[in-house]
Amino acid sequence: MKAYRELEGRFATLSHIGGALAVLHWDSATMMPPGGANARNEQIATLSEIAHVRLTDPKLADLLAQAELEIDTGDEWQRANLREMRRSWEHANALDADLVVRQSRVTSACELAWREARGENDFPRLIPLLDEVLVVTREVAAAKADALGLSPYDALLDGYDPGTRSAEIDVIFNDLEEFLPRFNQQVAAAQASAGAPLRPEGPFPESRQRDLIEHIIGALGFSRQNGRMDTSHHPFTGGVPDDVRITTRYNETDFTESIMGAVHETGHALYERGLPPAWRHQPVGQSRGMTLHESQSLLFEMHAARSPEFVSFLAPLVRDALAVNGPAYDLDNLQRLYLWVEPGLIRVDADEVTYPSHIIHRYRLERALLDDDLAVRDLPAAWNDGLNHLLGVTPPDDRDGCMQDIHWFGGDFGYFPTYTLGALAAAQLFTAAKLQHPEIPAAIASGDFAPLRKWLAENVHSRGALVDTQTLMREATGSPLSADAFKHHLETRYASP
Amino acid sequence: MKAYRELEGRFATLSHIGGALAVLHWDSATMMPPGGANARNEQIATLSEIAHVRLTDPKLADLLAQAELEIDTGDEWQRANLREMRRSWEHANALDADLVVRQSRVTSACELAWREARGENDFPRLIPLLDEVLVVTREVAAAKADALGLSPYDALLDGYDPGTRSAEIDVIFNDLEEFLPRFNQQVAAAQASAGAPLRPEGPFPESRQRDLIEHIIGALGFSRQNGRMDTSHHPFTGGVPDDVRITTRYNETDFTESIMGAVHETGHALYERGLPPAWRHQPVGQSRGMTLHESQSLLFEMHAARSPEFVSFLAPLVRDALAVNGPAYDLDNLQRLYLWVEPGLIRVDADEVTYPSHIIHRYRLERALLDDDLAVRDLPAAWNDGLNHLLGVTPPDDRDGCMQDIHWFGGDFGYFPTYTLGALAAAQLFTAAKLQHPEIPAAIASGDFAPLRKWLAENVHSRGALVDTQTLMREATGSPLSADAFKHHLETRYASP
Repeated sequence: MKAYRELEGRFATLSHIGGALAVLHWDSATMMPPGGANARNEQIATLSEIAHVRLTDPKLADLLAQAELEIDTGDEWQRANLREMRRSWEHANALDADLVVRQSRVTSACELAWREARGENDFPRLIPLLDEVLVVTREVAAAKADALGLSPYDALLDGYDPGTRSAEIDVIFNDLEEFLPRFNQQVAAAQASAGAPLRPEGPFPESRQRDLIEHIIGALGFSRQNGRMDTSHHPFTGGVPDDVRITTRYNETDFTESIMGAVHETGHALYERGLPPAWRHQPVGQSRGMTLHESQSLLFEMHAARSPEFVSFLAPLVRDALAVNGPAYDLDNLQRLYLWVEPGLIRVDADEVTYPSHIIHRYRLERALLDDDLAVRDLPAAWNDGLNHLLGVTPPDDRDGCMQDIHWFGGDFGYFPTYTLGALAAAQLFTAAKLQHPEIPAAIASGDFAPLRKWLAENVHSRGALVDTQTLMREATGSPLSADAFKHHLETRYASP
Repeated sequence: MKAYRELEGRFATLSHIGGALAVLHWDSATMMPPGGANARNEQIATLSEIAHVRLTDPKLADLLAQAELEIDTGDEWQRANLREMRRSWEHANALDADLVVRQSRVTSACELAWREARGENDFPRLIPLLDEVLVVTREVAAAKADALGLSPYDALLDGYDPGTRSAEIDVIFNDLEEFLPRFNQQVAAAQASAGAPLRPEGPFPESRQRDLIEHIIGALGFSRQNGRMDTSHHPFTGGVPDDVRITTRYNETDFTESIMGAVHETGHALYERGLPPAWRHQPVGQSRGMTLHESQSLLFEMHAARSPEFVSFLAPLVRDALAVNGPAYDLDNLQRLYLWVEPGLIRVDADEVTYPSHIIHRYRLERALLDDDLAVRDLPAAWNDGLNHLLGVTPPDDRDGCMQDIHWFGGDFGYFPTYTLGALAAAQLFTAAKLQHPEIPAAIASGDFAPLRKWLAENVHSRGALVDTQTLMREATGSPLSADAFKHHLETRYASP
């Protein structure tokens, strides 16, 4: 196990560099004054390059090969750790240095242009740049496909969600695509007959919202000893497991936004915090992938925190903390507010019913773009047609259409499906948790999240990257990941009389 | 100049790693939750080690030797840059790896013990640990002395203040030691006859103090575009020149503390911010040393911000921002408050008149400790005797005596004198600035610091590490660094009728 031990040391160093990078990224989004951007970019580029050089060091290849000969004497975690080391190595070494540089240059240029062009609703300006991104992304996908023995799309997907394959996604998304349009109409009809909830009227001062949220995330189990909450333009979770940094953003006319933003990020934070401490700085001690990460945030945001039990816990807190009262703050109205469904143009504003349609839409389009079945210049039309077909809405312009998300313009293809896979996993895990521990909802009503947290810690968080997503789902819930629990959840919540 | 160019690249990378470390250190003191400490220590140790390995890479020695053969074709800045590269290299390479590790282990252990033992007033516990620190520090000093061709103490001093030598310090400190005791008595007599100023009575809420300070540091020229101010246990300046992070601390019963803390750090920040942008990530683009750095903070804190002109600008701001009024807030009383002198036990609380006595005291003691003329077990007695001799006060215990400062317990010998050298440089620079630009005081009275800032930028900040401290002082003020301006300043401010 000598080679394996040496690898543990090398990967611990990589983890520390990664931790430093996490702090630098967090600081950029929360604290850094605008004039610090250039120096920060140099710091981040330098540390990223140092990490990349270490991960592509030829000595590492020898050590991996040697360790794989010795590892039979290792335990389950050590074997899994070596497997995850190999996976990192494969992803990093699949691309030659020239391709990495080209990819970084092309995607940075396109992302930078997107930041301006989106505001100006100028898609034509992005066409040649996105074309270049697609060219280089196809090269990256082909190189990774070769190295990993996967199809090109699966090779990209594997970078975000190890082990997940498009064949599984196709089955699940086809299932959903059949279910959703009909279900959406059913919900619309039910809502039309019930009428819209009252909209609370602000302003709700940011400082009061913040105090309220600090209280709520404390109840959820977010630890001030090992984390902090700040404000950023887009809510995110950063930092490292022993120092998790979450953010939210405040809208003084709508307090529901900041609360749900913080609850969502707390779900991510609890996952990071619950990763196995014994494997803290090793690959197997990290989270499993984007699907499970998103399942943890959505389990809290969509399931736990929109349940009648949670809203009954929340309502008096809101009235107290914001010093408000009246029918808009009644339990029933708040509950209806949190479950209001409305097909819209913007993915990040979508409710849980319409969100998957946005994702299925993007999944189809990104596969077509990568396969060259759809030209970039035809993207706006394809976008608008597809969205209209799935949700019955049509963007008035590209800004709120095919230019709304940063992902493709920054070179992230293969990422979108994990949002919806995460939503399905959230439903399936929450259903299983409640089946095994029927006391969970009543505990939530009294602001006690310990029973839920304990189940998640045992069945998800503490497992790190020991097994793949499907194995984890089967062991935790008894079935592989599917849309069943999600569909059942939607029907129960939105379409039962 | 090929080798020189290659060195520029390598030192730029070191600067980016240093910048990342600066952010990590800042975050540790301002933002990090307690549970993040272990992970942070690993991140900092990893990046420090990476930087050290790069600075001791044998290839670097070859490049330096080669560049020194080519550099005649370079300009003044390039030649100075190469000289500063060589200096960094010499300091880093003077110690073998084993000594570096031993030094770090011994000083960490002693500093950690000091944090506990100080609270418990338990000096005996620290004796064996401080002994070990002295043993390893003598080894470090000897190794650096060999490499740099300096005496052991000068070799340590050179690490904090390049080019400064103890022979100059001895002359200056002897001069001061003759002057101060008599002068202190003179001030005490004058104060006794005038009576003490009124003490404003708080509480002064932290949020109001913060708003006031944001306004003041804005007037001084601190830029929100390239910096931010936060709170920490000990005020400090961190970050990088394009993103300078300062801190202050709040005492709700005494608003003068937070203001002067912030003004002091703003002096440091303006120096960092004014370093030559063309040499941003090169050794010659960095600040010259601790003496000049401290001169910039003290010039603002002790000279500009305690001048009658500044207090006349400050007084109405204080009354407005803190919503206070009455005789304690009158111009005359505030001025006397800011110039009140009182010999005390604690260095960091000392006024500008008594501060140098604390430093001379420590300088004598640290030299005796290093030369083994004073045993660690005899330090408390020597401390108390010396302080009584210089200031007429005697600590009731070691907590507020020889255990009050972290420096020696953390292995920092050769650092203390730069505080007082900085105070002397501040007096000399401020005097020269006002002589050359007599409009400076009137501008300060109207809250306009631009004329002072401009002079400092030209004569100090923008020069980076181009010349040594003495050359810079001569070129800026016409004389080498001495105690003359400082003594004259004290006499004018405190002892003129």
